[in-house]
Amino acid sequence: MGKRVGKQTVEIESKPRIIATSSIVGPKEGSGPLKDYFDIILEDDLNDKDSYEKAESSLIYTSISECIKKANLKEEDINYLFAGDLLNQLTSSSFAARDLNIPFVGLYGACSTMTESLSMASMIMDGGFANYVVAATSSHFSSAERQFRFPLEYGSQRSPTAQWTVTGSGAMVLGKEGNFPYVTFVTIGKVKDYGVCDVNNMGESMAPAAVDTIAQHLRDTGRDSNYYDLIATGDLGSVGKKLTEKLLLEYGYDIKNIYIDCGDEIFDHKKQGTNAGGSGCGCSAVVDCGYIYKNIIKGNLKKVLLVSTGALLSSTSCFQGLTIPGIAHAVAIETD
Amino acid sequence: MGKRVGKQTVEIESKPRIIATSSIVGPKEGSGPLKDYFDIILEDDLNDKDSYEKAESSLIYTSISECIKKANLKEEDINYLFAGDLLNQLTSSSFAARDLNIPFVGLYGACSTMTESLSMASMIMDGGFANYVVAATSSHFSSAERQFRFPLEYGSQRSPTAQWTVTGSGAMVLGKEGNFPYVTFVTIGKVKDYGVCDVNNMGESMAPAAVDTIAQHLRDTGRDSNYYDLIATGDLGSVGKKLTEKLLLEYGYDIKNIYIDCGDEIFDHKKQGTNAGGSGCGCSAVVDCGYIYKNIIKGNLKKVLLVSTGALLSSTSCFQGLTIPGIAHAVAIETD
Repeated sequence: MGKRVGKQTVEIESKPRIIATSSIVGPKEGSGPLKDYFDIILEDDLNDKDSYEKAESSLIYTSISECIKKANLKEEDINYLFAGDLLNQLTSSSFAARDLNIPFVGLYGACSTMTESLSMASMIMDGGFANYVVAATSSHFSSAERQFRFPLEYGSQRSPTAQWTVTGSGAMVLGKEGNFPYVTFVTIGKVKDYGVCDVNNMGESMAPAAVDTIAQHLRDTGRDSNYYDLIATGDLGSVGKKLTEKLLLEYGYDIKNIYIDCGDEIFDHKKQGTNAGGSGCGCSAVVDCGYIYKNIIKGNLKKVLLVSTGALLSSTSCFQGLTIPGIAHAVAIETD
Repeated sequence: MGKRVGKQTVEIESKPRIIATSSIVGPKEGSGPLKDYFDIILEDDLNDKDSYEKAESSLIYTSISECIKKANLKEEDINYLFAGDLLNQLTSSSFAARDLNIPFVGLYGACSTMTESLSMASMIMDGGFANYVVAATSSHFSSAERQFRFPLEYGSQRSPTAQWTVTGSGAMVLGKEGNFPYVTFVTIGKVKDYGVCDVNNMGESMAPAAVDTIAQHLRDTGRDSNYYDLIATGDLGSVGKKLTEKLLLEYGYDIKNIYIDCGDEIFDHKKQGTNAGGSGCGCSAVVDCGYIYKNIIKGNLKKVLLVSTGALLSSTSCFQGLTIPGIAHAVAIETD
């Protein structure tokens, strides 16, 4: 049964367990610094499909069904699928959900979708509405590039602050019991807009939302930032990460020693030419489901705050001269 | 505390109250058969903005803030806003949420978003996570038309099965107490795809999902369809409505006498030239928040099943030759 804590946070008293995760990535992510933590690395990012959109949908379908298998469950055991992606009208998730026999709640939070879906999944579990739920999301470099930016064939130059959309999908299965990492607190974020208009600088547009959600989470729970072994924003990239660190210092929180950003970690920016780092819903999804979850299971991390961040723009809103609002949701994951 | 009932339904035991609703519509909807039930009727569907997208965002902002006022509450009293719309990346809802100081959960279920947001709102209330929440959605004929179909300036001909996207937004505030209609059961739907490819025939693509969700809801709750004074799908239009009625008969449920479809009701199709009827998230939103809620309050209806229906297509998926998956979520609203 949920319990409100402070202004914006809820305690997840029943501690739903993350009993399995799965991650699937493209070849570029699969040759980056975190390659050893992903379950499946594609050789070809088309994944035998005839469009990048169909490929992306096959990624999220695969991560969800693999995750259910890993949890020793069947589709019919899962009460809800919470999922979303960056494609217009959630094409990837909707078509994946069509091929899965699971009641589907479509979510959109741009690149914050991993913690948005995990938040909803945790609250629904805690409310007693489900025995098992899945939280998932995906993104694909090539489908995102042509939808939000330019046709790939242009070979357009990228600005130094630009980020590289991750090709990948991550999924988590939550259950009630077992010796697994569990969710303890959820802080749903507010939309923050500091007037950034540069579509090639997502990190700057999302940083204020990350800062607001992290600071609110710490205030609400009465925790010091050092309570956590790791705070992982995603996907602010190197530019947004620096800003977040600096702004949080102004709020009195020095998180430097325990802070990573999923977009900053997933690529070797210089070698891989990814400028400010990775982005896309799939970025925090595969880093959370791969690198972070596996390090919790190994005992290297015990208390983690996941803070996926989203830039709530559309190509229409940008062309109409609007600024880029950001949002971030925080989920605390702990283990005994 | 939630309680699972049957395979796919949950009982909302705490009966969260719908303490206020609001509806705002464009001039065409405001001169249709339900005009007396809407709170605000715009004279100009641009609503003093310089784009239809900005106009749509102003509609959902207005319906949410008016609804909060009607409930005698302030923005800071609302713990969560559950909202979504048809525009790419939820432009309308995200920008409205930016101007509201409320933690925001973005949802996408195409035209099923009203009952999707109401389902999440009800479950989150019942789980004890909130004192007050808002569920809302919007659509706009002109922003939808140019995003999904053709520039308005083409003046393209419309097929007989085509529907007319409603310009409008509806919002509901849920609270814990008071003598108001309350939510008793929620059935989250599965994605159903019977292979319809015709983007000018949404009713046909969504009808199987409506049928599946209604039949499942009745099986799960053990209720006969005549338990309800009204079952309101939306927005199947006249074509989808006929199909739904017919298919439900095959499942053994004769709902003819208590069945309306929001898309079928909102326009006078012949006089207003809306072919198969209204559509868009705003359609079931304004009919539910206006016509149906007000009739419950008046005592004309006591037991209603709302079943918003969504077609999970994107222009990309259609251009790539994919079929149109449908989804429907059912929420039972009752009063003493």
